[in-house]
Parts: sequence; C-alpha cells; structure tokens
Amino acid sequence: MAKNKRRIGLLTGGGDCPGLNAVIRAVAKTAKNDYDMEVVGFYDGYEGLILNRYTSLNDSDVSGILTRGGTILGTSNRADPFKYPVLQGDEYVYLDRTSQCLLNFESLGLSALIAIGGDGTMAASAGLQEKGLPVVGVPKTIDNDLAGTDVTFGFDSALQTATEAIDKIHTTAQSHHRVMIVEVMGRYAGWLALGSGLAGGGDIILIPEFPYEIDAICDQVKLRNSLGKTFSIIVVGEGAKPKGGEMVVRRRIENSPDAIRLGGISYQVAAQIEGLINIETRVTILGHLLRGGSPTAYDRILATRLGVEAVHLAAGGETGRMVAVKGNDLSSVPLSEVAGKTRRITAGHPWVKAAESIGLCLGLPTGVPLEKSLST
Amino acid sequence: MAKNKRRIGLLTGGGDCPGLNAVIRAVAKTAKNDYDMEVVGFYDGYEGLILNRYTSLNDSDVSGILTRGGTILGTSNRADPFKYPVLQGDEYVYLDRTSQCLLNFESLGLSALIAIGGDGTMAASAGLQEKGLPVVGVPKTIDNDLAGTDVTFGFDSALQTATEAIDKIHTTAQSHHRVMIVEVMGRYAGWLALGSGLAGGGDIILIPEFPYEIDAICDQVKLRNSLGKTFSIIVVGEGAKPKGGEMVVRRRIENSPDAIRLGGISYQVAAQIEGLINIETRVTILGHLLRGGSPTAYDRILATRLGVEAVHLAAGGETGRMVAVKGNDLSSVPLSEVAGKTRRITAGHPWVKAAESIGLCLGLPTGVPLEKSLST
Amino acid sequence: MAKNKRRIGLLTGGGDCPGLNAVIRAVAKTAKNDYDMEVVGFYDGYEGLILNRYTSLNDSDVSGILTRGGTILGTSNRADPFKYPVLQGDEYVYLDRTSQCLLNFESLGLSALIAIGGDGTMAASAGLQEKGLPVVGVPKTIDNDLAGTDVTFGFDSALQTATEAIDKIHTTAQSHHRVMIVEVMGRYAGWLALGSGLAGGGDIILIPEFPYEIDAICDQVKLRNSLGKTFSIIVVGEGAKPKGGEMVVRRRIENSPDAIRLGGISYQVAAQIEGLINIETRVTILGHLLRGGSPTAYDRILATRLGVEAVHLAAGGETGRMVAVKGNDLSSVPLSEVAGKTRRITAGHPWVKAAESIGLCLGLPTGVPLEKSLST
Amino acid sequence: MAKNKRRIGLLTGGGDCPGLNAVIRAVAKTAKNDYDMEVVGFYDGYEGLILNRYTSLNDSDVSGILTRGGTILGTSNRADPFKYPVLQGDEYVYLDRTSQCLLNFESLGLSALIAIGGDGTMAASAGLQEKGLPVVGVPKTIDNDLAGTDVTFGFDSALQTATEAIDKIHTTAQSHHRVMIVEVMGRYAGWLALGSGLAGGGDIILIPEFPYEIDAICDQVKLRNSLGKTFSIIVVGEGAKPKGGEMVVRRRIENSPDAIRLGGISYQVAAQIEGLINIETRVTILGHLLRGGSPTAYDRILATRLGVEAVHLAAGGETGRMVAVKGNDLSSVPLSEVAGKTRRITAGHPWVKAAESIGLCLGLPTGVPLEKSLST
Repeated sequence: MAKNKRRIGLLTGGGDCPGLNAVIRAVAKTAKNDYDMEVVGFYDGYEGLILNRYTSLNDSDVSGILTRGGTILGTSNRADPFKYPVLQGDEYVYLDRTSQCLLNFESLGLSALIAIGGDGTMAASAGLQEKGLPVVGVPKTIDNDLAGTDVTFGFDSALQTATEAIDKIHTTAQSHHRVMIVEVMGRYAGWLALGSGLAGGGDIILIPEFPYEIDAICDQVKLRNSLGKTFSIIVVGEGAKPKGGEMVVRRRIENSPDAIRLGGISYQVAAQIEGLINIETRVTILGHLLRGGSPTAYDRILATRLGVEAVHLAAGGETGRMVAVKGNDLSSVPLSEVAGKTRRITAGHPWVKAAESIGLCLGLPTGVPLEKSLST
Repeated sequence: MAKNKRRIGLLTGGGDCPGLNAVIRAVAKTAKNDYDMEVVGFYDGYEGLILNRYTSLNDSDVSGILTRGGTILGTSNRADPFKYPVLQGDEYVYLDRTSQCLLNFESLGLSALIAIGGDGTMAASAGLQEKGLPVVGVPKTIDNDLAGTDVTFGFDSALQTATEAIDKIHTTAQSHHRVMIVEVMGRYAGWLALGSGLAGGGDIILIPEFPYEIDAICDQVKLRNSLGKTFSIIVVGEGAKPKGGEMVVRRRIENSPDAIRLGGISYQVAAQIEGLINIETRVTILGHLLRGGSPTAYDRILATRLGVEAVHLAAGGETGRMVAVKGNDLSSVPLSEVAGKTRRITAGHPWVKAAESIGLCLGLPTGVPLEKSLST
Repeated sequence: MAKNKRRIGLLTGGGDCPGLNAVIRAVAKTAKNDYDMEVVGFYDGYEGLILNRYTSLNDSDVSGILTRGGTILGTSNRADPFKYPVLQGDEYVYLDRTSQCLLNFESLGLSALIAIGGDGTMAASAGLQEKGLPVVGVPKTIDNDLAGTDVTFGFDSALQTATEAIDKIHTTAQSHHRVMIVEVMGRYAGWLALGSGLAGGGDIILIPEFPYEIDAICDQVKLRNSLGKTFSIIVVGEGAKPKGGEMVVRRRIENSPDAIRLGGISYQVAAQIEGLINIETRVTILGHLLRGGSPTAYDRILATRLGVEAVHLAAGGETGRMVAVKGNDLSSVPLSEVAGKTRRITAGHPWVKAAESIGLCLGLPTGVPLEKSLST
Repeated sequence: MAKNKRRIGLLTGGGDCPGLNAVIRAVAKTAKNDYDMEVVGFYDGYEGLILNRYTSLNDSDVSGILTRGGTILGTSNRADPFKYPVLQGDEYVYLDRTSQCLLNFESLGLSALIAIGGDGTMAASAGLQEKGLPVVGVPKTIDNDLAGTDVTFGFDSALQTATEAIDKIHTTAQSHHRVMIVEVMGRYAGWLALGSGLAGGGDIILIPEFPYEIDAICDQVKLRNSLGKTFSIIVVGEGAKPKGGEMVVRRRIENSPDAIRLGGISYQVAAQIEGLINIETRVTILGHLLRGGSPTAYDRILATRLGVEAVHLAAGGETGRMVAVKGNDLSSVPLSEVAGKTRRITAGHPWVKAAESIGLCLGLPTGVPLEKSLST
C-alpha cells in the first residue's frame, strides 16, 4: 500500500446477509473516486482487526462482486473485541482485545473504520468509538429489526426468497388440502414473517410481537374450510410464542446418540392443529436459505447508497455514528443510541393494519384488539 | 348483486404493470371485511364504464390472483371518457362519453369509483370528479414517474426484471469483450434506467433528464479498456437523447412492404460507438418484458396497502384524491394536482449522487456538473 | 356432457409434483383435437373415482394452467381403491372399493382411465386393469425413482429448485467458514441428491444407495480446509444411512406436549461432524419446497408429451400400460412390470462416474470402489 | 508449470453459452484427479492458440465458476486458424495460421487440445486434427442444431430463459388483448422457438424448417378471438421465413446517420397482422439475453459430464472426435463427420407431433401435412 495516503478500514460482522458485497464495492469505489483513499479490508469481522488479518481492497478486488451473496471479507458471529474467546486449557475464556484493535488500527495508519453489521457489531463499535477508535456503522440484518433506521439492506432479498418459497408451498398446499406451515427467521421481531405473509398470501401469520392463541388459529382454518378453501398457509416467525408461553427454541439434546432435538415453535403449532382439528399439517423451515443468494435490485441500490454514505461520514470525521435510512433519504444516528435496541412491529403499523383489512389472522380471535396483545 | 348494499366500482387503466391484481384483491377483500361493501369491476379500464361492461368481484373471484402479473379486469390504453374513439365511416372521431359514465355509475348504485392507472387515467379521473363522479385514484406505472407519490407499485418488479436481464447480459459482454447496450422503458424519466444501471453494475447510464455527449461515452469505454476491463455495459432509458438533439422514437415507415423501421436511440448510440472507436456493440431492448410477470414481494405489499387505503378513502367519501406514498407512510393528494405532471430525476437525487461517487458515467464528460446539463 | 361422445377419465394421485397441470392440459387438448373425446377429471386421485366426484375438463378449464404448480384436480396420498380407509367407530378399516370404481367408470360411459401418479398409483392401476378397468399410467415423481422409464416429469423442476437453494447456501457457507448440510427428498433413491450435488457444486453427497462412513466425510472436510477451502457443502438424500446402519426417519414422539421429534439423518451427521472435528455445521431441509412451483421448461415439454401420448394409447385401446421415456423417445411398458419397483443409482451410473472424476466425496474413503458399498 | 508433466490445452470458441465454465471446471478437475495432468487454457478461442496467449488452470482457478455464465477464458467469433483476419493497410486479409498453432501447441508440450465450441470451432478443429494437432471437440450452442449429438449444453438454459420471458409476456398480452410476438435465436433451426413455444404455451410457432403462410397465422388469431381468447402469443425463431420467401435478416443500412435498420422477420409478421386483421401487435426480441446467465441444473450436469468425458478421450488418445450425447449416454463421433452440418427439426419429430396434437399452429393452414412444407 502506498505511503502517505489516507486510509480507512472496513469489516463485515454478524450473520450473513445479501448485499454485503455491494456495500464493500461501494466503499472501495467511493473512497478511491471521491477521496483518493485506500481501503483496508479486515477478514472475518472484528476478528481480522484483533488478529491483524487484512487485505487491501482496490478497484479490481471489488469488480464483479455486486451481484454475489455473502461477503468476500468473511464474517464471524463471535469475534467481539470486548469478549474475545480464547482457549485456555480445555475452556474458553473471554478477554478484552480492544487495546490490540487500537494498536493494529494505528499501525496501519487508518483514519476511520467502517463496520457493517447488526446489533452486536454496532454495540462493539460504539464501545470502540468511546475508546478512541473512530467507527462508522452500516446497519445490516435480514431481520430488519435494527433500531435507528427504517430499513436494513438484506431484508428485501430475504423477503423475496421467503415469498418465492411460500409461492411454491402454496400450490402444493392446495393440491393436498393441507395446512402448510412455513417458518422464517426473526427471533425478536416479525418483519420477515409479516412481510412474506402479506406478499405470499398467507392466511395466518404468527410473530413474536403478538402471542397467539391456538384456538384462534384452528378457528381460522375451519372458517376457510367452511368457505371451500381446503388448505391454509401459516407463516411463522421463529420467535413466535403462545399467549402466556415462552419462545420455543430448537435445540439439540446434548449427549444423545440420536441427536434428538426439540422441535421449534412450528412443530408445536403443527402438532396442536393435527391434535385439535385433525387436518394434516406439514412444516417447512426456510432457515439459512434466507441469508444467501444474489441481492434484489432494491437491496443492491440501498447497499450501494449506504456504502457511499459511510465513506462520506468517515472522510468527514463524522464517526461514532451509524448510517440510517429515514423515508427516502439517508441520515445518521449515534452508535450509542442504537446499540442493544430492537425495532419491533407495533399494533398500529401500516402492515398490520393492511393485514387486518384483508382478513388475515394474526393468531388472535377476531375482534380482539391487537394493542391488548402486545408481547413484551 | 344484493340490493341495498353499498357498492363501489373498480377499474384498471393504462399500460400493464405487475401488482394490478394485488390491488384488485386488496380492494375486494377490504371492501367486504371492513365495510361489507360490494365491488363492481369494470372491464378494460374506462371502456368498461363507458360501455357498461362489468363483473362483480367477490372473495372467490380474487382468490389466487395476488401472485399473477396482468389484470383480471383487462385494461385499455385508449379508452378516455373525454375522447372516446368511435368509428364513423372510415375514420375515428373522438367523442365525450362522460355523461354515459355518470349514467352507468348511477344506475349501478355506486358510491365511488377506484381507478388504478397512470397519468392518463388520473387526468380522466380528475375530470370525472369535477363532473360529479367521485373517484379515488391509485397510482400505477412501471416508469415510476407519476407526480404526487414517492414511488408507484410495479416499479420494483420492473426494476428487478431489468436488473436480472443486465446480470445475464453481463456475463456475455465479458466473454466477448463487447459493448452491450440494454434499453429499458422510460420515455420521460430515467428511473428504471438509473435504478437498474446501479443495481446491475452498468458502466454508463443514459437517461432523458441528462442529454448525453457521445464522446463522453466513448471516453469511458476507452478508459475501461485501458484498465483491462475489455467490456462495458450501457443502460439506456428509451427517452435518452443527445445533447442538443431530440428523442429518437422507433417507428415503422408506413407503406413499406419490408417494414423498415427507424432504430431507436440505442441503435444510434451503438452505430456511433462502432464508428468512432471500432468496438463491437450489441443492443438488447427489454421492452414489454418489464411489464409482465409476478410482482416482487415489495410490490405485492405496496399494492396491497394501496388497495386497502383506496377503499378507506372511498368509504370515507374522501374522493377526488389519489392515494400516495410519502416515505414509509400512505397519504393522498388531489387528483387535479397530479394530472399531467411527470416526476423526473434531478441532478441532486441520492441515486445520482451515489452513481457519481462509484464512478458511473451518466453520459457527460467527467467534471461537468450535471446541474448544467438538465434536459428541459 | 354430451351423449354418445367417447369419453375418458383422468386423475392425479400421490405426492404433489410440478408438471401435473401440464399433463392435464395436454390430455384435455389432445382428446379434443385428435379424437373429439370428452375428458372427465376425478378429484383427489382415486378418491374421486371411488366417491364419484368429478368435473368435465374442457378447453377453457385447462386454459392458463400450463405454468402452474400443483394439480387443479387435487390429489390424495391415501386413496387406494384396494385399501380405502373408512372410519368405523374410532378406527379406520381398510376396504376394497374396486367394484365401486368399476361401477362409476361404467355409469359415466368411460372407455379408459388415465392415471397420473407414482409407485402407489401405478400399483393400484395395474390391479384395476386386471379387474377389467382399462388404465393408462403416466409416471410422476420428483424422486425420479420409478421403474420402467428413464426419467419422470417433475424431477427436473425439483432438481432446479434444490440447485438454486444450494447456490444460496453456498455463499453463506463461504462467508461463515461452516459446513452446511442441505437435505433433499429421496427416501429410496438418491437422484435428487446426486443431481443437485453435481449441479450445485456440493463437496460431499450422501445417498441411500451408498451407505456412508462418517470418517470419510470428516476427512474430506479436513482435506478441503487444508487446501484453504474453509467451508464444505454436504448434500444429503433423506434416505441416506451410515454403513451398517438404518435409515433415520424423522418422527414425532407421540403424546409429547413439546412435540419433541427425532432429528433426521442430516442432524445426526451434523452432530457427528461437530463432535469429531469441531467445525460449526448447520442443516437446511428443503422438504416440500421441492414439490411446488412452476415447472421448468424441460418438465413442461416432457409433461405435455406424456399427456399427448397417454391419450393416443387410451384412444387406441393400448391400456394396462404406462407411458415411458426411453432416451429421446416415448414408449410404454406394462403396468404390472413397473408396480412396486424402484429405480436406484448404481455404482457405474454416468453421474456417479462424473462425480468421482471431479473429486466429489460420496461418503466413502478414497480408493474404496463403490461397487463394494452398494446398499441393499 | 511443472516439467515432465502431461499437459493438455483447452479453449472456448464461438458465441457465448451458459455452461462453458462448468465444462472448464470439469476438465481441470478431471485432468488433475484422474490423470494428474496440467491444463493450459487459451484465451479467446483459437486466437489464444494463434497468439500464444494462455493461463494455467489449477483447482483454485476453477473454484466457484460452476454457477457463472460466460467463460473465464473469453471467446471469439472470428478467430479461425485457417482464415485469421490480419489488418494490412486499411483492409483485413485472411491468413492461414495453422502452422503457428502447431508450433505453439508443441512448444507448450501439449498432448491434446480440448476445443469447446459450435459448428465453426468443430470445423477448424477437424482441419487441425488433419494437420497433426490432436483435438477433442465438445459441442456447444444454445441453438441445439449441431449434428452428431442429441443435445448441446446451453440449450436447456436458453430454453428456460426464453420460457420465463414468454411467461411474462403472457400476462401482459392477456391484459391488453394483443398479439405479442416473441423472437428467439435460431437462424437455421427452430429448436429454441419450438421448445419455448411448447413450454410457454405459445399459440403460434414459426420456425425456419416450416415456411409459414401469413393467412394461416391470421386465421388462428381470429379463431382464438372467436373462442373468447382475446390475445395470442407468437413465438418466432429468427430464421423463420414465409412460404416462397427468404429469411429476413436485420441489418443496419450503412452510412445512414440515423442508423435506420431493416426490421427482422418478427416486425414483418407484426406489420402484416396489423394490416390484415387490425389487431394490435407488439414485438419483443430476446436476443443476447438467451446467451447469458447461470446455467440450469440440467446444463450444469450435462456440461460437467461432457468435460469429464473429453478428458478421458484426450488422455486415451482418442482425438479427432467430438463428445456426443446419445439418449442418456455419452459417446463420440468423428469431427470430420459433424463439421458443417446442421441438425434441423423434421415434420415427424416428437415435439412437432405433440404441438399438433395440442392444437398449436405452426404457421400452416389446418390440415396441410407439414411434410409437404419442409424448408430446404
């Protein structure tokens, strides 16, 4: 890398998400075109900064990556500079590696770091900023539940993949007169479930925000049958839960030779429907499918805009902030304000109102106002 | 149809657009669920109202149409109630059929009409409203150039189709070291071209708003070649034009047995590139492909919301207005304010700024401020 | 329906499969065009024949269905005329309803029945043929494991869906340095797993025909890591099993309030990899996704040809036979010869040979000839 | 590259085609796995061999290319070793460069060359084989018209792209009550047009093999209208021509400042339909879209198999042959037998027979046997 040039760092953290490469490309191109800055890409999220593993990102490095899912820099779910897992003997201990981050940051002569990531990455970034390492955050999650921004890139792509899957499930539900449950990601917020349920023509949508009553679900299935609609599609966010109940997390039962696992919420709902109204019910879990693939046009444009804006902030010294979408425009919010917060669906959200008007069941008896049912 | 029930009319006018059926479905379901109103669907846009051709739209009529392109009601580009073409002898004369519209509207006992359409449909609707026929407009165009609303349904789907096409063209451009021109719709505004150019990684984007200089285009192609990028993608909005020149409309030369036709703007640009810098250049015109197909998840949700909102306005007597998107919310604007206006791209639009930052050529020499080049 | 016209019956049985509607359309059109015959469509497979539930299929009934997944006639997995489940008191008893089938067949004045289905449908059809009800079978299964035919419609579509899913999983495996397991249908034969593994660039493919050794799988993952490929894709057919072991069927543990279920083979393999070589491993089960959606062009053409041919056989009195694909041509085989047989992958199959040449691991140690490992 | 290792050459020639990279990958992997041979990839078809421009193809070079359209080696339509264009003064002269090819081949120590390409590439390869340069051909064309093989890779992908485009056009044809013409590639053979017409539910299909009568086309459109089907889809192979007429090639009129061009056959048919029966008719030309994009699962498997087989032939010294598909198996045919021949559709082909049975119009009056209409 050339001497005396201004230089910024870049990393991608947290779960995979369509559009990461589009942000990386936009950052590299904007840094070069608008500021003649170099970009240093760290591998595998904050792990690369901690271990000083990086590459330079020139124009040729980002050529052709716009359309590809994943991240050419790699990512890591676990590399928190404040609690970095290190094996000591047989056990992991969690050590503070922020000083190492600062050291590596300075020895590379960086003026700012752009960190693309979700809640965890923003929290770590807010902490590093306080310690004197200037960071600009770029919000990323397919769940769309990050605070401080109207929408995150990757969500539209995941929504499209989920909707296409529901379209496929639709035809087969109809042919077999079955209840089909499609489970999408979304542990704390139901954006993907509500969005793909609306877009895919789901009949019942269960999301973490509105704890469901199983009888309301069964009533809706029976109502549809009575109208000659001999199938129903239920779209479930993985964090959905029954009224008064807890989230059911899929887990392996350790030390079991058979890898017995506790079924998630969808299997529970399926078992209850079959038990209560004796209608064949099948479950499909979309899972990691939603994280992969080429981003939609919408996400490619959004990711490009976010990458461009992040460089403007970094070059202008406006660090400690996360780029944010507000309506049609981009702005920014303090990292400290968004870290640790989740943006959830409210009873009055336009998508909820639209769902109610077209007669979708959100897991509650007809006539019960959703406001009274909000999960906490 | 039942007597004494409240009843609203519905029609789809103008060019085809993904999401029309999603609006129709949302209108029928909301009218029934929220207001117990009947919906009368007129065939082929305003032609159905003029000729009293219609069908009732019950829940079963709109079942399964959410995912389908096109409109189950049919549409018409030419059926303007104020200038309805009628054959007299060998020639068409254009007659005012608004009285007939009012008559049919009243004899069906309708309380309002929901008209989904573009510029022409909104203009006709504004006129009918003045004559006493209460209309709620729903904006629709793949071109995204309707005034009064941030975005129109159908645009995202057309953008996605155009982007996927550019993705395909990309690989073949690269293998053959060619310039590939991809022409998208957009006679007066470049939203589709700029959006798909950004999303598809186009290298040069020509739109009606910024008249291009052919030398700037050739310079960009040569610059890329000098950097080892032996191909270029040019995305052209069909209304693009050279600086100081006119829009080149494809047309048949009448009375020619060979159906000779004048090539559109893309063929002109291709001929000039081949003539000036001798690089093989091929043209693909996406045309009607962009109007068809299943809508994206984004458009299905937006179309559903617009349909729901239109019924709320119609039921509440807030007619003479078009439903509009403002940021994340829906609102409405007077039909009279939007009719006859086009929303075009400005030099300061965020998409333009992002395109410049990542080094895209918008048809003008580097360093020339776009503000000075705005087409009028 | 008109009197004195020749008339044939049609039904779709067994699991859902892309292309069923394309066969129905071809049958209805060919019967009309080539023979001026009427087509009676029975609902829900053999259940419709048993219960005399049917509809006539005219040209307008099959208009627009070519592209749609599912079957407009509905299907049933359980309606076997020889063992039809009837509730007596609290229990199901299984009764022979073949006489009822013959009665209904005759009272409708049918000259032949075309039965589209898989193994179970062909077996029932062979039995009815013996009892004097003339049947022509059309082979259908996404698993491609029907005997007597080179290929079945629906397989190409399922293969394409599985491959696109693996493509998506690929990018996310790479970003996270994980082992990703993708499970596809195929209880007795590995066509879908081997095909999508080849097409999706899987690294390890486990199919029922070749019982795997877990150490060979781990060795391949480690070999890849040593070459700098820090991720691996394992494609698993649901009927895959370890050497000397049994097929692991997912099942609910009855009477459990938590709907605990025993994980299938993929969870078992994942648990073993994580236990043996400590590399994060995630599972995606494609399941019913593979049965739905619009058929591929290949399947639409094949389904159309099969439907046409079935009518020719039915009209020519060549019943008791199943239409079959042999190379590029269609022929037919006796129903009695195909019933109850499964077409499985052999060690010498061209796909297996190609997989070995490009270095894919089929679950066995390098150098071990597959012939010795054939599952029985 | 290592000394003393066996080494083969590889190049991709002719028009772009989905699956080229899949063949390249299979060749590189098989050469290494089965024979420990090195692969030298020449750039841009035979041009690379003539100019000695090449790269080595290791496992890492072909990693991740399976799913991508295009060819990482580049291609050239014009680089014929027997007639290589060289600029002398202002003009191109065409020189024999075969001695140079032999020289470069030998100096690189190659034992065989694998040439992936169409008709032109096979002809050049046959010629080089005679001159002592051992070549194995791999057939490639989206047109599927190569002699000696049942099918070529790339065809299924192009067919799928064309069919998806027709699906989109379908909805918009229906909404607007128009005739929509979709033109696909295929100058000498109608495989793509007939295949996508069957798969996309086209109503009229025009291919080079069966010269059409415009009256038969108009009669079919009118017949459909009389049955209430107010739209028609016409799928046209670019080489289609009227009975007694010539192929209409699109061309630029040179030296015209306006780039006037003569419309192709589709514009001619459109003009005639509008003139004769006054129904609005629109044209879409798919063109280069069909050459790009990620290959289908079918094509990826086929391309992989062909690449594997080509290495086996090259390693075994069976040169002068083209790998060929026969039914479900691969075999090979002498290059000299396939060069310069085109595989065309016959009146008795199963696809033609199926099209007739379901009532498609192939451009001729009902009742006229196609055999009498074969184009020569």
